[in-house]
Amino acid sequence: MKDNKKMVEAITPINEDFAQWYTDICLKAELVDYSAVKGCVILRPYGYAIWENIQKLLDARFKATGHENVAMPIFIPESLLQKEKDHVEGFAPEVAWVTMGGSEQLEDRLCVRPTSETLFCDHFAHVLHSWRDLPMKYNQWCSVVRWEKTTRPFLRSREFWWQEGHTIHETAEEAIAETEQQLNTYAEFCEEELNIPVLKGKKTDKEKFAGAEATYTIEAMMHDGKALQSGTSHYFGDGFSRAFDVTFTGRDNTLQYPHQTSWGVSTRLVGAIIMTHGDDEGLILPPAVAPYQVVIVPVAAHKPGVMEKAEELRARLSKFCRVKLDASDNSPGWKFAQWEMKGVPLRLEIGPKDMEKEQCVLVRRTDREKMFTPLADLETVIPEQLVHISKQLFDRALENRKNRTFTATTMDEVMAIADKESGYIKTMWCGDEACEELMKEKAGLSSRCMPFEQEHLSDVCPCCGKPAKTMVVWGKAY
Amino acid sequence: MKDNKKMVEAITPINEDFAQWYTDICLKAELVDYSAVKGCVILRPYGYAIWENIQKLLDARFKATGHENVAMPIFIPESLLQKEKDHVEGFAPEVAWVTMGGSEQLEDRLCVRPTSETLFCDHFAHVLHSWRDLPMKYNQWCSVVRWEKTTRPFLRSREFWWQEGHTIHETAEEAIAETEQQLNTYAEFCEEELNIPVLKGKKTDKEKFAGAEATYTIEAMMHDGKALQSGTSHYFGDGFSRAFDVTFTGRDNTLQYPHQTSWGVSTRLVGAIIMTHGDDEGLILPPAVAPYQVVIVPVAAHKPGVMEKAEELRARLSKFCRVKLDASDNSPGWKFAQWEMKGVPLRLEIGPKDMEKEQCVLVRRTDREKMFTPLADLETVIPEQLVHISKQLFDRALENRKNRTFTATTMDEVMAIADKESGYIKTMWCGDEACEELMKEKAGLSSRCMPFEQEHLSDVCPCCGKPAKTMVVWGKAY
Repeated sequence: MKDNKKMVEAITPINEDFAQWYTDICLKAELVDYSAVKGCVILRPYGYAIWENIQKLLDARFKATGHENVAMPIFIPESLLQKEKDHVEGFAPEVAWVTMGGSEQLEDRLCVRPTSETLFCDHFAHVLHSWRDLPMKYNQWCSVVRWEKTTRPFLRSREFWWQEGHTIHETAEEAIAETEQQLNTYAEFCEEELNIPVLKGKKTDKEKFAGAEATYTIEAMMHDGKALQSGTSHYFGDGFSRAFDVTFTGRDNTLQYPHQTSWGVSTRLVGAIIMTHGDDEGLILPPAVAPYQVVIVPVAAHKPGVMEKAEELRARLSKFCRVKLDASDNSPGWKFAQWEMKGVPLRLEIGPKDMEKEQCVLVRRTDREKMFTPLADLETVIPEQLVHISKQLFDRALENRKNRTFTATTMDEVMAIADKESGYIKTMWCGDEACEELMKEKAGLSSRCMPFEQEHLSDVCPCCGKPAKTMVVWGKAY
Repeated sequence: MKDNKKMVEAITPINEDFAQWYTDICLKAELVDYSAVKGCVILRPYGYAIWENIQKLLDARFKATGHENVAMPIFIPESLLQKEKDHVEGFAPEVAWVTMGGSEQLEDRLCVRPTSETLFCDHFAHVLHSWRDLPMKYNQWCSVVRWEKTTRPFLRSREFWWQEGHTIHETAEEAIAETEQQLNTYAEFCEEELNIPVLKGKKTDKEKFAGAEATYTIEAMMHDGKALQSGTSHYFGDGFSRAFDVTFTGRDNTLQYPHQTSWGVSTRLVGAIIMTHGDDEGLILPPAVAPYQVVIVPVAAHKPGVMEKAEELRARLSKFCRVKLDASDNSPGWKFAQWEMKGVPLRLEIGPKDMEKEQCVLVRRTDREKMFTPLADLETVIPEQLVHISKQLFDRALENRKNRTFTATTMDEVMAIADKESGYIKTMWCGDEACEELMKEKAGLSSRCMPFEQEHLSDVCPCCGKPAKTMVVWGKAY
């Protein structure tokens, strides 16, 4: 016989084993389940609801800047994937191949899309005629497949859910402006709605997207000091346009190639939320994307009028926030632990004594601050508290990043820091890929980005001593 | 050099070649583009926006009845697909097989999901413990793949977009009630929001879903009298539960199998909209799902103040409807034809003379009725007109169905009607599959459903003369 009662089980302490703590949260907060398909997870209702909120907020931002949604096929013929040389080299080794349709062996194998530049280019070649048709600014929400060897929920899996924006423009300047605009959209979204501070910058050539001229990135720092690449925006120049023969008649009546961008964020962002904000009690969700922003827990629920009052409050709160009433027959203590695990930002407790005083207790998930609050004030206090929680989350994460950001001017310094700290290390860099590889070899660090906000730390590259060209932020990454 | 100006081209007349008319609309109203993948289409922004509106409205209905969204993997291992005998027989012949991941040959082939009962069952087996966990009412929005031989945009393609609901319940009664509730949700959605009258009924055993105990359907009649199966809802009993060992501890502490349902609608609904409502000028969109409900076309746009007034109206209308201002430099006549082709329900014309009189011209897409309307009244008149258009669309479609629904009591009658008419033929039926096959052979008709609203047309089956058990509606179908 199976257990007929679930328990709120303890999770591994965050500072004891961060990786296990992460997995515990993914499973025990009921975000994901492992599936019958190796390396693929199931997004359960609570996990999917977070992603749904992310989608809604981002989609609105995309539409407000003139982007339109489309749906491209799930497959890419091998012959199409091969048209852009760098791109196929980057992706072909890690795709899933469909070789049979029904009982028919396919002549041209189909890969399950790992990303859709090639499909968009093929479509652009059909529908683009004149400069009047430009820009075309498309986006799609879908899942993609990459045959990863080691996988972790949200962070790296064989299938993941994402959006991919693909745009073409009349001029290089416009395309570059689009690339930057979309990176800024991501950064603002992460900071304002996910309460995750991000570092904006440009990837080195070694780390850029297969086929791109330039890749821009937002990097977030997790609780353990490791970096998570959280969104990227690519500028392609006219490389793909030429490879796919995408042309238009320009203002001067000559045939021209459009300039192209792509940009994406994925369910990785849910991983970023977990690892940026969570604690020993479990998940802590940013109010903007929490499936429930407030959970109502009735105390002494059997006493006359308590459940009725709780339901009345639920109905009232549902007009201005996402609210859940836990009317199950579990104890209040069990419910507190359960909803703390699930990271609901604000708990509202209501019992007979509170009812007498026409008040309730609000408890913030971030610091467990208990606030006796007159019932009449909820319409004001709850939105204020949600804003307060957002700010707390952002400030904590920023503080963690500050505490874990280091500066070095020599390789000895780099190695000494990397040896005892986990975080970002800022250094100057000569621009040579050999030095980038040395940094990996000697200190186990990869270049996260060349930040837009540059500082002058020294005159020379710490690896080779040659003149420095730019400042790089290095780190260990997920 | 490519054309640098697109033209509104004429489409094939609807009563000359319905199939070509349909294809013309799909392409010229810019709903789809053919892709590099045989049998797969691209949903272009205008086509996808219709689907997005369908999703929003249906998703709200699903959530209002307690359903939660999840995301299941895109793949099903062959070993998992094979667990339910009828199901694998129905689907295995028409799936796409992934046989390689990266450079690795897979031992257990993966099919790209044609439907996800098997994945849901595998997940239910993990997460279901007690009767307290029931019901589980899940839904996912995704695309699925079926290796069809002949394809047409929206109606039948190798990949299509849909939602699939999957629920498990403590008792058979609850599961059957869910199956019926979801069918009713589909029917109400089709009639109220897509303005398409549907026939509700049960499929015969021959036509039911592979693995189901019962399949319920909504059937819509297209302009040409052919039927389109527009949504289905299946009751599985505990067949899948037993095959996948999905169990729970019941109220009496014994181990039990839950009862299961699934239900789905797809981008076929866009095909239904086109073929139910369209005419010789092109598409006509139901206001509830039209990407733009009103298009503003400025007349004599170069005259002082006209564009400013048009923009002012756009901003004003955007507060209560989805509105597009066509500010391009095409002529008004070109724009009228373009937006009629794209099926925008209501056109608003504004020019200098209208401005003098503080009025505008509203034109309904359905009947080209021109209405001089005081600008002050738009907040009232536009919503009224959109309701009026919805009603016109529904009434026309219902009229078409009435005119094309026939009754027969003998095979001679059936064949005579099928020979000269296209539509539904109602007859009694003995329940024998042999007679169903005879109907196909002799009259080219398939059973659409056994309608919930039964009539007594005669005592015997027209095929075999044996006692009749039920009334069946027959037709040719897409």
